[in-house]
Amino acid sequence: MGEFDLISKYFTKPSSRALLGVGDDCAMLESSQGTVQCISSDMLVEGRHFFANVDPFRLGQKALAVNLSDLAACGATPKAFTLALALPSMDEPWLQAFSSGLWQMAQEHSMDLIGGDTTQGPLCICITIFGEVPRGQAILRGGARAGDDIYVSGTLGDAKLALEALLGRIHLGADALERVRTRLELPTPRVHLGQALRGVASSCIDLSDGLFGDLGHVLRQSGMGAEISTDWIRQGLALTEDVAALDFEAKLDLVMCGGDDYELLFTAPARARELVSEAAARSQTGVTRVGQITQELGLRVLDRQGRVIDRPFSSFDHFSQAHHP
Amino acid sequence: MGEFDLISKYFTKPSSRALLGVGDDCAMLESSQGTVQCISSDMLVEGRHFFANVDPFRLGQKALAVNLSDLAACGATPKAFTLALALPSMDEPWLQAFSSGLWQMAQEHSMDLIGGDTTQGPLCICITIFGEVPRGQAILRGGARAGDDIYVSGTLGDAKLALEALLGRIHLGADALERVRTRLELPTPRVHLGQALRGVASSCIDLSDGLFGDLGHVLRQSGMGAEISTDWIRQGLALTEDVAALDFEAKLDLVMCGGDDYELLFTAPARARELVSEAAARSQTGVTRVGQITQELGLRVLDRQGRVIDRPFSSFDHFSQAHHP
Repeated sequence: MGEFDLISKYFTKPSSRALLGVGDDCAMLESSQGTVQCISSDMLVEGRHFFANVDPFRLGQKALAVNLSDLAACGATPKAFTLALALPSMDEPWLQAFSSGLWQMAQEHSMDLIGGDTTQGPLCICITIFGEVPRGQAILRGGARAGDDIYVSGTLGDAKLALEALLGRIHLGADALERVRTRLELPTPRVHLGQALRGVASSCIDLSDGLFGDLGHVLRQSGMGAEISTDWIRQGLALTEDVAALDFEAKLDLVMCGGDDYELLFTAPARARELVSEAAARSQTGVTRVGQITQELGLRVLDRQGRVIDRPFSSFDHFSQAHHP
Repeated sequence: MGEFDLISKYFTKPSSRALLGVGDDCAMLESSQGTVQCISSDMLVEGRHFFANVDPFRLGQKALAVNLSDLAACGATPKAFTLALALPSMDEPWLQAFSSGLWQMAQEHSMDLIGGDTTQGPLCICITIFGEVPRGQAILRGGARAGDDIYVSGTLGDAKLALEALLGRIHLGADALERVRTRLELPTPRVHLGQALRGVASSCIDLSDGLFGDLGHVLRQSGMGAEISTDWIRQGLALTEDVAALDFEAKLDLVMCGGDDYELLFTAPARARELVSEAAARSQTGVTRVGQITQELGLRVLDRQGRVIDRPFSSFDHFSQAHHP
């Protein structure tokens, strides 16, 4: 099978939204009236973003999910994507499973695959995603204001917990491992929550590098600081599975520094608490209030007495850390 | 230096065309009135699309040039691009040179870098490019009609000739090698010609896999056949450098099957010959008439007596051939 047969067999379906999809030099898209287009690119590399033996169906889902998460963080409606794929060899069972996972995620969000590229090379997946948001309604990172509440969706630290277990650094029972492994390998992009937060949230970012690092981006771009409480971690709102063997410090690390959760972190004025609850209910997504934006710069993590926890936290960096060695 | 410093130091400049560029979850673009957006993605992998020791400045230029070539083939005006980059290590001199080449090509075509991703991994460059074309004026592959003339821009086979010389399969003098090597490492995207051909050309494709294979795409999508004459090859219109040591058969192979030239192949009705000449002159790009579209399916290469040359031609396939072993 050659390159063009591969594209035709696994990566071509009729487009419903594009004027012109796969099969010409370019794909063609037309924007809806009164919208702006939101664009994001993510590259996934074997050994860095996923294990070589990961289930290819899940990998196909995740490759699109991490891009959908970027649209979600802007409040955008997904529309289309391109896929560039480097593959070590023409492995048909792998392609069958990978493309099935990709299409399943695409259909769940009514997306078209409109173009891309395939080549031989070390396994590398690059997706560029396109969404739309009504003009002036995109939720950006720079909109947080002093006094705003800080929220996170879902639970944090699960993906990192799974990674630690898969690397043999901590032990989890089979059931607990399977639960957190699903969160690592198949994150849920919070697309509906993102859209529901248009006009409600003052800023938003998706959590790919960990709460500490990603909140840092919001604070820098907003010119603000923040205080994060930790009661919600003690109350078991942080991780999917309460792992008895883990102490508070370990949980705090997972929640603050664990990457790959693809939950949303967002801020909203205190007067909008009811609107936030409605948005969460409408999108059937749990959200937890975790802190507050402050005029004072810097990011402070507080214990239950309101004292600053004086210890270092780190953010994931794709050049200094290998998550999947 | 971390991932975010890298992006900030090498890949961030103020955007003039985007509503929002690098630094949020998504970039934001707004389409001009009455236009459709043209989108294309290309992935370049070390060892497959370029040699490991290639000049990184030229590589930066080429990575964008091959994408610009796809816009050119649709007659689109370049607007913006995203860059996803996997790098084995934080090699600052390499990044400095690569990003300088990329910016030079971007500025030449008034393009903004609006987003992307960086990660550690085997060297892999994925660019997604965005252009605009007035609604209804994109030049597609499927518009060739019986009797249309077939044209190519510039010269063909130079890139393949350089590759053969660099691989030690043929000998070229130092001057000749440098000329064709420049064509391999720094192709000229025919952006101005593509735009000048709006309303003139009936179909267009860029030559990345070779004349034989790429014309095949046009014929399939147009439901037509073609006859290609070879006089222009004998007349020395084919290759940049007339290499005395090469016989006609070798030149024919280079011209028909050599990939990586990034010239345009296009068709136009015979009555439009003057308009084609004007478009070529306006864009300061040489074009050569090389054959004719036929009702009869199939692609026939004719000798100077008009007889079919009965020998196989091949098209480049990224899975069955390694251009840069």
